[in-house]
Amino acid sequence: MAVQELHLNQQFAQTLRETLRADQISVAESDLQTYARDQGPVTDYHEPVAVVWAETVAQVQAVVRAAAAHSVPLVTRGAGTGVSGGAHATAGAVVLNLTRMNKILEINAADEIARVEPGVINGDLNSAVAEFGLMFAPDPASFKISTVGGNIATNAGGLRCAKYGVTRDAVLSLEVVMADGSLIHTGHRTFKGVAGYDLTSLFVGSEGTLGIVVGAIVRLKYLPTIVRTLAVFFPDVQRAAAGVLALGAARVQPCILELLDGPSLKELDIRNGSNLSQRGTALLLIQFDGLAAEQEETLAASALEALDGTVSREDPAEAQRLVDLRRNNRGLDVDAENRVGEDVAVPRSQLVHYITALEEMAVRHDVELQVIAHAGDGNLHPTFSVPTFEPDRIQALNAALDESIDMALELGGTITGEHGIGQYKLRWLGLEQAEPVLEMQRQIKALFDPQGILNPGKAIPAAS
Amino acid sequence: MAVQELHLNQQFAQTLRETLRADQISVAESDLQTYARDQGPVTDYHEPVAVVWAETVAQVQAVVRAAAAHSVPLVTRGAGTGVSGGAHATAGAVVLNLTRMNKILEINAADEIARVEPGVINGDLNSAVAEFGLMFAPDPASFKISTVGGNIATNAGGLRCAKYGVTRDAVLSLEVVMADGSLIHTGHRTFKGVAGYDLTSLFVGSEGTLGIVVGAIVRLKYLPTIVRTLAVFFPDVQRAAAGVLALGAARVQPCILELLDGPSLKELDIRNGSNLSQRGTALLLIQFDGLAAEQEETLAASALEALDGTVSREDPAEAQRLVDLRRNNRGLDVDAENRVGEDVAVPRSQLVHYITALEEMAVRHDVELQVIAHAGDGNLHPTFSVPTFEPDRIQALNAALDESIDMALELGGTITGEHGIGQYKLRWLGLEQAEPVLEMQRQIKALFDPQGILNPGKAIPAAS
Repeated sequence: MAVQELHLNQQFAQTLRETLRADQISVAESDLQTYARDQGPVTDYHEPVAVVWAETVAQVQAVVRAAAAHSVPLVTRGAGTGVSGGAHATAGAVVLNLTRMNKILEINAADEIARVEPGVINGDLNSAVAEFGLMFAPDPASFKISTVGGNIATNAGGLRCAKYGVTRDAVLSLEVVMADGSLIHTGHRTFKGVAGYDLTSLFVGSEGTLGIVVGAIVRLKYLPTIVRTLAVFFPDVQRAAAGVLALGAARVQPCILELLDGPSLKELDIRNGSNLSQRGTALLLIQFDGLAAEQEETLAASALEALDGTVSREDPAEAQRLVDLRRNNRGLDVDAENRVGEDVAVPRSQLVHYITALEEMAVRHDVELQVIAHAGDGNLHPTFSVPTFEPDRIQALNAALDESIDMALELGGTITGEHGIGQYKLRWLGLEQAEPVLEMQRQIKALFDPQGILNPGKAIPAAS
Repeated sequence: MAVQELHLNQQFAQTLRETLRADQISVAESDLQTYARDQGPVTDYHEPVAVVWAETVAQVQAVVRAAAAHSVPLVTRGAGTGVSGGAHATAGAVVLNLTRMNKILEINAADEIARVEPGVINGDLNSAVAEFGLMFAPDPASFKISTVGGNIATNAGGLRCAKYGVTRDAVLSLEVVMADGSLIHTGHRTFKGVAGYDLTSLFVGSEGTLGIVVGAIVRLKYLPTIVRTLAVFFPDVQRAAAGVLALGAARVQPCILELLDGPSLKELDIRNGSNLSQRGTALLLIQFDGLAAEQEETLAASALEALDGTVSREDPAEAQRLVDLRRNNRGLDVDAENRVGEDVAVPRSQLVHYITALEEMAVRHDVELQVIAHAGDGNLHPTFSVPTFEPDRIQALNAALDESIDMALELGGTITGEHGIGQYKLRWLGLEQAEPVLEMQRQIKALFDPQGILNPGKAIPAAS
């Protein structure tokens, strides 16, 4: 431990010890390893010099003030379920872990809001508000362990955002510790409000680079009591993708609309002993909720049968199993240099064309491809992988990745629908956004964090 | 005209004449008067020194470059239907009118988006996309004449936002001319996207103070084919307000949920020869749309009958008439110093309490009060008025206004739900937002517009 301490600015360490209990600070090698990364691909591994667990807003403020005084970079994190490296440690950084700030401070069912600390687990919040017939709509696949603060930092999406919107749509107000340790309040408890600039939206999705979210008022939605689920298998992935547009044309609004291609179904079968891949070559998993769910299901079924879809109305237990399979399709894998899950989004009219192009790229570069998509939003998660870390294989993987990004942009898409830029996707942001826009963001960053201590090297590429 | 010309920087005027045709520039007194103000209360009247009508993005850029070169302030405007003075001219300002940039550049029905110039009229966009079974959801009362650019500048709401969200929720991407005349692009064509900071949301609602929106990609919603409308009259406004919570508890989602108090009903009757005030003392006007509209109507009716509501199911023609009456309840009146329509929002659980408090204030200050509300959002438009401009009456009006603002804030509300700060509400923003938050916004403003030429003196109060 003495060796590790050397890496930690001693005056800063002293301040931490005066502010926090011993069990809130660790320089143990196991902790430094555990908190060195999130679930994104690692290309530049650093262990933090310490991990601290704040338990109160005042403690966050004290840690930030000390970090500012000694120019120590802070990487704030929740559960670390991000997949873009937004919570990877960087050189000399202290990891500020907010998972112990996990209190639900208020649930107001009449106002349909909850006030939470950032470390509240998404699934715990949903359990708590379900008693009032309400839900917190953002549902990233990791919702059972991911924190609301992390959802906010990444503007997380999920399955239900096809109907219910993304995290930004669920956040009314934030408490934020700024880079000088001061605490500010943005937004309002009300559903609507246009007083001043929309600072709340500026912080949502900023990956801890502009301030540290230490509290939020979130808007809740009605927990549906009626749910209908369709599994529709298609002879090819192109017809499944076309089904997404057919559902739009039928003017139905699924709460879940997921597309899984053949290789994804096969992998799920291997992992779970299911027989999905025997039922078809591609699957649209569709859920409707609310009073019109049954009518929407009927409209959807006929629209998709017209595209040669084999429609299966699932009973609630099987429906839940299918949705769970989809949510967990990443299994225990985390991204690595030889297996990268992408997060592009394209206009929905381009889904068929884009998936066809992805398949062609995979063949040409000789890499494995699986495609799953939050298809209702045009948000695709193609996963490219190669079997080994041999340089030429990694090079082929990267060539396929780069090409898939170029093509998504060419079709009017974005390089990240819901995972964020983090550290891993910095190399592509300049392809999507022009230099003046990047520079504007650097200047906003400099305004909010002049010393550059808040999650440096994330979200926005440094000036070249 | 020669006298007027003297007010206009001659070099700037020369550049304008080189850039624009003669019919795009006016210093005629009638134009200066027409474009001196929007529909907000005027407390500091200035005529602009000139009005220019840009017709292309390049012309906007040229005007801004010239204004920057000669430090001429620009007040950008559309139809001028704002009610907070956000488009009031200020001393020495040139009004930049974008109403001629009114082309719908693209409608993509499969992607459910439209790409528009800022001067497109909201109602025209809605007519155009209705042919595809789509709608642009923001529907401020002025939608027949207000522009999409103005909707964006104010983050306009309207009646339908109870279900469909506000303008920010409908904007995917912006083209913005910055204060140096450069053109940037924010956002994406896709429904989801988290690449970089959310600059789109920062521009939406910034009232032309950070940049000039010259184009937008907006997200469209499905135009409902099934609509059911209820008019529910109550014996008092408190029970009508309680009805809003009862609808929430019944888990129905109206697309329109408007509350009108007794004095509002009486005024509508006088203006329109209707008999609303004979039917009850307060009205909830409720519309459901979509496949579940009839079921929701039935649930709503029983929930409101339990609160002594007299429920009337309106046929489509009468429903449309009632909604039109509500939309036009301001009539041709514009706000003035002796008649000010407020725009506070409170958490919905506070509606009953707040309306009771407003009535008490009106009596105590001896001012007239009418309350209408986008009640589904807790967004109230109380209108206070006094019969004359005598100083003691204006003082009483202002005292009531100030008190209504204080009370809204005390209840966890905001001073502006959808109209914006503009010029008129600057005096109250410091009550809602702490000085460091105001200062942060001033710094953002300074970053985007270092010379302060973009709509100066609006949206954010100057440092005191």
